[in-house]
Amino acid sequence: MNAEILAVGTELLMGQIVNTNAQYISRKLNDIGVNVYYHSVVGDNPGRLKDSLLTALNRCDLVVMTGGLGPTQDDLTKETVSLVLGKKLVLHEESLERISAFFSRINRKMTDNNAKQAYLPEDCIVVRNNNGTAPGCIIENNGKIVVMLPGPPSEMMPMFNDTVIPYLEQKSGYKIVSKFLRVFGIGESQLEELMLDLIDSQEKVTIATYAKDGQVTVRLTSKSRTEEEGLNEILPFQNEIASRLKDALYSTEDEELEYVASKMLLDNNITISTAESCTGGLISATLTDMPGISKVFMRGIISYSNESKMENLGVRPETLDKFGAVSSQTAAEMAEGVRKMASTDIGLSVTGIAGPEGGTDEKPIGLVYIALAHNSGTEIRELRLAGNRSRIRNMTVLNAFDMIRKYVMGLKG
Amino acid sequence: MNAEILAVGTELLMGQIVNTNAQYISRKLNDIGVNVYYHSVVGDNPGRLKDSLLTALNRCDLVVMTGGLGPTQDDLTKETVSLVLGKKLVLHEESLERISAFFSRINRKMTDNNAKQAYLPEDCIVVRNNNGTAPGCIIENNGKIVVMLPGPPSEMMPMFNDTVIPYLEQKSGYKIVSKFLRVFGIGESQLEELMLDLIDSQEKVTIATYAKDGQVTVRLTSKSRTEEEGLNEILPFQNEIASRLKDALYSTEDEELEYVASKMLLDNNITISTAESCTGGLISATLTDMPGISKVFMRGIISYSNESKMENLGVRPETLDKFGAVSSQTAAEMAEGVRKMASTDIGLSVTGIAGPEGGTDEKPIGLVYIALAHNSGTEIRELRLAGNRSRIRNMTVLNAFDMIRKYVMGLKG
Repeated sequence: MNAEILAVGTELLMGQIVNTNAQYISRKLNDIGVNVYYHSVVGDNPGRLKDSLLTALNRCDLVVMTGGLGPTQDDLTKETVSLVLGKKLVLHEESLERISAFFSRINRKMTDNNAKQAYLPEDCIVVRNNNGTAPGCIIENNGKIVVMLPGPPSEMMPMFNDTVIPYLEQKSGYKIVSKFLRVFGIGESQLEELMLDLIDSQEKVTIATYAKDGQVTVRLTSKSRTEEEGLNEILPFQNEIASRLKDALYSTEDEELEYVASKMLLDNNITISTAESCTGGLISATLTDMPGISKVFMRGIISYSNESKMENLGVRPETLDKFGAVSSQTAAEMAEGVRKMASTDIGLSVTGIAGPEGGTDEKPIGLVYIALAHNSGTEIRELRLAGNRSRIRNMTVLNAFDMIRKYVMGLKG
Repeated sequence: MNAEILAVGTELLMGQIVNTNAQYISRKLNDIGVNVYYHSVVGDNPGRLKDSLLTALNRCDLVVMTGGLGPTQDDLTKETVSLVLGKKLVLHEESLERISAFFSRINRKMTDNNAKQAYLPEDCIVVRNNNGTAPGCIIENNGKIVVMLPGPPSEMMPMFNDTVIPYLEQKSGYKIVSKFLRVFGIGESQLEELMLDLIDSQEKVTIATYAKDGQVTVRLTSKSRTEEEGLNEILPFQNEIASRLKDALYSTEDEELEYVASKMLLDNNITISTAESCTGGLISATLTDMPGISKVFMRGIISYSNESKMENLGVRPETLDKFGAVSSQTAAEMAEGVRKMASTDIGLSVTGIAGPEGGTDEKPIGLVYIALAHNSGTEIRELRLAGNRSRIRNMTVLNAFDMIRKYVMGLKG
């Protein structure tokens, strides 16, 4: 099956928003083995929308449309599809009740406009919207499938995932199952080399890698009759790859490294304090993204100045004099200092040069030290990072969470 | 003039990347008065690429293509355009020299593949690429214009801005000038109401508003013969709007609020220290995004626990007992404490409930206090924010930078 994703909305053509829906739907369709051949975007204009829909129906089996299901006169998607396919719009009572219930829940009066959203093409499969007023729908017509979903991603994504994907899987008669293995500390090409024999020998399970922002994802995909069968086919590959990647593999559930490490702290009740220089609070801000983290994270210090390193963290003046603020020695004393002051299980510190100023031949931009102090010593990681200020800071954060994760694993292993 | 933006690349259809190029080009084209009617994306497939190009040429005056100019066999954009328009590809000597110089600069050997990138359609206008190897080009043919640019945004954006936009402006014989006024603390609908008479009376200068993440932008656009003439037409509107918005207007140069406030601290040499609870370091992380901020920002404290509020900031136990950690009194003592400890001109603190847990009837999720302590007192802002943890934290950061900005303006006014 091949597909076109057709987004409707002048705000996309004005450049006010970016078409992330197309990316989301493309990924999901590729995951279940549907080939996406085209993306298109057209404005809220009846003639051009009609032409775009005809073009899409002419060249693809499946057309997934997003947007244009709102309550105003501008919103023309259902009307245009009905016209093109020769269908009537009929009132869907359940949708009307859901819309009306939605308005009483948020304590607002429902207008006649909103009732328009409950009219759907006859004989369609209704796609429920639990996060907004506009229902979506699926229409089968002359061997083609048209799917219509609302534009806001928070409404579209669960509707696509919960209703459209299972519908398409059922249509195809098989189930595509994917596992996402997340890796840190191994580059994409090195990773591919490590798995080359598996990639070359792949038959029922396909293996693909993606790199983004210093992290790599391995996708294992199987096409089977049931989810269980698919997972069973994937498992030996997953185990083999896991044994080759060792502790560079940090999640088999497509989670972020920061999340995995923060959750390990919470689950194991390991308390942490932070002392940041060049990251300026990014590590603590990332830690505190996690709801409930206050159980293990009590305090952090941002010590940009030498005075702060001495006064708040107890770094010795001699250390700063002899080795400088950006040194493994200073990093160690920062981590040990904050750990002691906060009486936590671990103390984590960062000092480095994020640029664009401040680099020297001896200590170039991108030189960063991370220290992790615990009850039996202090571990140091030296980084020499390339890129701009923002990349250097972000890569430092990832490395810090990698150190946290490996420390907790060591405790458990 | 109307336009289609046609992106070429299977990685877009796989959902590996999102088509931010289409957004960037759309904005720029709208800014100079070109109507964008369609976006499309097609993969690295010669047949489908050819069909998409023919469709685009059939329905638009201008086709801006991105991607497919790389050195490999997959990269087919120039070949397909030349085929469709009946042009030969000819060697462009200057581009070959530039590509060869690029490789010696990065100390790598140039391959024959890369020489392929110097072949361009005959009679085209070459668009120089200062950030990569693939030159772009502009072709005029039978009243239509085709622009080809490389896919990586870091290469495409300066090429589009520096060469394509001036080319299109010259074609049109006029110059579109825009000013972006950035506003905080007034909602989009209230803002529109404030400017309704101006919007209704607009003739030469068009006024539009955009809202995003709690900030609103007003765009003033004029179509004139020269940039100077355009700015002169805009100026009275800009001044009138500025006088109505008063200090809610924080930039006439399309800058972020955080940037404007941080720069004010730097320019006026006002030193700052921070004490954060619910934002967990987001304010200091945002401050330290700014290169050179270490001149005025020396330290920050993340005080998640009551112990830290007392030990690191000198908050009195009685205050915590009587009013609680989330109270204007605690916020004030945090700000005053960090200011005193760090000996800075201002001390900024935040305490609040970001959720999803921890809310009560009396102190619901979204209740936040920000305090700014300075040499003649302490200002408090109470926020009652809606939304999830992430939105509450981000809106708090914006409000904090708004307080900083207003404080510095008060000093100067």
